[in-house]
Amino acid sequence: MSGPHDPSRPHAALPAADPGVHRLDRHTRLCMSLAARPSDVGTRFHNFLYAELGLNFVYKAFTTGDLAGAVTGIRALGIRGCGVSMPYKQDVLPMLDAVDASAAAIGAVNTIVNDGGRLTGYNTDVIAVQSLLPDGAGRSALVAGSGGMASAVVAALRRAGFDDVVIAARNEETGRALAGRFSARWIPECGGHRADVLVNATPIGMAGAADGATATPDPAFPRAAVSGAHTVVDVVALPPRTPLIALAERLGVGTVTGDAVMALQAAEQFRLYTGIRPDEEQVRRAREYSRRT
Amino acid sequence: MSGPHDPSRPHAALPAADPGVHRLDRHTRLCMSLAARPSDVGTRFHNFLYAELGLNFVYKAFTTGDLAGAVTGIRALGIRGCGVSMPYKQDVLPMLDAVDASAAAIGAVNTIVNDGGRLTGYNTDVIAVQSLLPDGAGRSALVAGSGGMASAVVAALRRAGFDDVVIAARNEETGRALAGRFSARWIPECGGHRADVLVNATPIGMAGAADGATATPDPAFPRAAVSGAHTVVDVVALPPRTPLIALAERLGVGTVTGDAVMALQAAEQFRLYTGIRPDEEQVRRAREYSRRT
Repeated sequence: MSGPHDPSRPHAALPAADPGVHRLDRHTRLCMSLAARPSDVGTRFHNFLYAELGLNFVYKAFTTGDLAGAVTGIRALGIRGCGVSMPYKQDVLPMLDAVDASAAAIGAVNTIVNDGGRLTGYNTDVIAVQSLLPDGAGRSALVAGSGGMASAVVAALRRAGFDDVVIAARNEETGRALAGRFSARWIPECGGHRADVLVNATPIGMAGAADGATATPDPAFPRAAVSGAHTVVDVVALPPRTPLIALAERLGVGTVTGDAVMALQAAEQFRLYTGIRPDEEQVRRAREYSRRT
Repeated sequence: MSGPHDPSRPHAALPAADPGVHRLDRHTRLCMSLAARPSDVGTRFHNFLYAELGLNFVYKAFTTGDLAGAVTGIRALGIRGCGVSMPYKQDVLPMLDAVDASAAAIGAVNTIVNDGGRLTGYNTDVIAVQSLLPDGAGRSALVAGSGGMASAVVAALRRAGFDDVVIAARNEETGRALAGRFSARWIPECGGHRADVLVNATPIGMAGAADGATATPDPAFPRAAVSGAHTVVDVVALPPRTPLIALAERLGVGTVTGDAVMALQAAEQFRLYTGIRPDEEQVRRAREYSRRT
């Protein structure tokens, strides 16, 4: 490579090579992920798109027992980007040089971009949810859940201009804390609450969810709430058509699937690393490939 | 991966994948190199052999402006091995947990092996030269040169049991220093000096050598010295048949080519990282592939 940190360098074409041999050379840029328990999904998604788009990049998943050392290594080795999963999303924040508003809003980073040794943290979940939401002006929102994804959703709602946000969460402590952070209102149960935009940020409807409450085929919101909504968002990506999405479709209500959120956040991460936004069909095939493990 | 540091993990088979897509998964182990100006040779050599031997490894060349940070990253990310080139070979030594005798002998590391976060430095040039030398008991040696490779050669001679070692070097300062370190004798010119083993550790005979002195087609040692020798060693690898090697062959004197030294040091590095020693034919093809850039 011409230097560890050369963001101005054009994307080198892939070198020709024997089939089966990793086609790396000194110009190849490394992107990576950090997770306590790495999966193959990100590795396959990004490497598929590098090949598809002819980019001289390679992606590899790592775990670490030394987060600060790993971040030092990202800087010292000029690693272009790093996906961040649990349990590092909060802890990594003070180790960065800059934090994009998407990550600062919830104090959680899921993407690090290295520009010449300067590390910026982003949260592409927030970016993706925000992009998929309708305009919030004059609209109300109801979010079920108070975990990490609920936090991203509430931040996205605020950034999209929603003034009236209610958080429904059985866990009073995390529910009140999340509401407090975003000047929202906490309620323990959705019950009869109505809103223009309903967002499920709980595991309800997830395939293979373990506990009894989430194994129910019931949608995350009551039929009456769904029928009165403008848009229903589900962050559960598997199955893509959750009971909530299916109900909204039957009632003619607009939907944003968890699958769409996941696809967009992954595409956004890819764009931040490479400067190139894959088209919808490329993302679809990359996601299909990444699940075929 | 099952953890950043799991040397007991068996070498995972390569996952199947679409052609052209890097076949990495969470078990893939990364090996790397650090050099001020990375070449593609190591990257192509190692990645070729990973494919040839079906090992789930990938190799990538890096440079750095922060050697200590890079070493911290190797530990924190569980990077399995790292080739070290100029100008890091000496500086990296105090950053390691252990130094093999091959590297300690000359104070220069060209290979780092990471066993569960414990970094050991080796010098595979020393190991390779030593393996290719005849038994030193009762034999004398004459080494031309006083640079880094001459240092590796003298250390290898000592380890191979040579008691009588003479260093011929025009640079009196480096020549005397090297001689002093290994209780050898320094002389300014080979001249009429004779020895059982002659080693050229200068660029003399190298293809495309820049200055007038090294552009000469003359062999590195006089004909009389070569004809009286048991073995002649040349560390110049390109061309494989240097004027010195050609002369020794004509005179029926045993030879060790720079090409053989380079092949063995690379194979040794590969073995240290993967635990697997490629056979001669595999190394030959890997080296041929690595030059095809």
